[in-house]
Amino acid sequence: MRLRALVAKNMSLVKLTIKGISYSQTQNGAYALILNEVDGERKLPIVIGAFEAQSIAIALEKEIRPPRPLTHDLFKNFADRFDIVVKQVIIHKLVDGVFFSSIICERDRIEEIIDARTSDAIALALRFNAPIFTYKNILDKAGIYLKINPPEEGKTPEESDDPLTNPESFGLVGEENVTGESYTQYSLAELYELLEGAVQNEDYEKAAKIRDEISKRES
Amino acid sequence: MRLRALVAKNMSLVKLTIKGISYSQTQNGAYALILNEVDGERKLPIVIGAFEAQSIAIALEKEIRPPRPLTHDLFKNFADRFDIVVKQVIIHKLVDGVFFSSIICERDRIEEIIDARTSDAIALALRFNAPIFTYKNILDKAGIYLKINPPEEGKTPEESDDPLTNPESFGLVGEENVTGESYTQYSLAELYELLEGAVQNEDYEKAAKIRDEISKRES
Repeated sequence: MRLRALVAKNMSLVKLTIKGISYSQTQNGAYALILNEVDGERKLPIVIGAFEAQSIAIALEKEIRPPRPLTHDLFKNFADRFDIVVKQVIIHKLVDGVFFSSIICERDRIEEIIDARTSDAIALALRFNAPIFTYKNILDKAGIYLKINPPEEGKTPEESDDPLTNPESFGLVGEENVTGESYTQYSLAELYELLEGAVQNEDYEKAAKIRDEISKRES
Repeated sequence: MRLRALVAKNMSLVKLTIKGISYSQTQNGAYALILNEVDGERKLPIVIGAFEAQSIAIALEKEIRPPRPLTHDLFKNFADRFDIVVKQVIIHKLVDGVFFSSIICERDRIEEIIDARTSDAIALALRFNAPIFTYKNILDKAGIYLKINPPEEGKTPEESDDPLTNPESFGLVGEENVTGESYTQYSLAELYELLEGAVQNEDYEKAAKIRDEISKRES
């Protein structure tokens, strides 16, 4: 029933898929996880740390099996052993540019909703083949329309050029604290201009940061 | 009974405590987790990645509460919700310088033993206040006698100078892949000399690497 309460929150759920992970253009060790609206054009870029990016990339790259279990692999093994499944992930809140997620778990038909960072929630969703959702109002607020270059079109993650295909590269940048330039000094109008430019350059991570600053002002 | 099988493995368990985490002297983003033999003088240095080091440091620093749950905090919340406890951690194997651990979990008196990287196992042991053990033969093989400077003596982790007291610093170095210099070209005699020097300089991380190379040769 706590799930129902969560869903009841007036807005409808929107299903998302993972488009990929964009390497930090600003070399600050952050990555932008790009989520796709399934029934629409909008993308939801979420800035995540290098460790989480690596864990998500490895889960996406079916071929790659790390010699030892990563923390999220351990989580999966642990859940399996106790017959617990992660049924779905909901990105349910966006506050000051931070996305809050819930993982909906089940054991013996008893459901538990657990608060998680979105990066952890997605890393687990991949390992449990659990669907990822957000609320319409969050996508309305933080979704970005991205033109994808035709060459990119139709490519599978394996074929595409994003660092997803080369998880080793994640090791090369690795600050956990996502710092980088601040956009506080810009006006709202300037921010929208910067956002436009970042999107055109496909600098999703920068776009996400600007978008977050904008939502701070507008919230 | 699987636990019994594990313990039966001829050798006796040795209890360990966490002395601290030594900042990478070689700036390659690795940290040395230093474990203390409770009933003895030996230290067990284990090279771990920056993310795991940060998670362990934050768990040791009771004052610091990250705004959002780290992956190991999520693991703890998840286990709590389903009434699962991590009862103990056993560092049970050392192969080519890699320490293998098991986390012994329990729910409704049913015990499960789950394979984990030692860094994850320790990060979880701290959150569950679970004791950490290894086998005598592993400590015999990989334990190092470290002279601790008198000023260090009696210091609490809070007072000591290791980066443990400043988890933010972990963010500054963050390669996930623990690379760094190799010692393959040295003779065993040279390695023992290097180990001596590294220990004297309290470069635990270097000492651990040399120690690992030595155990590769001797195993």
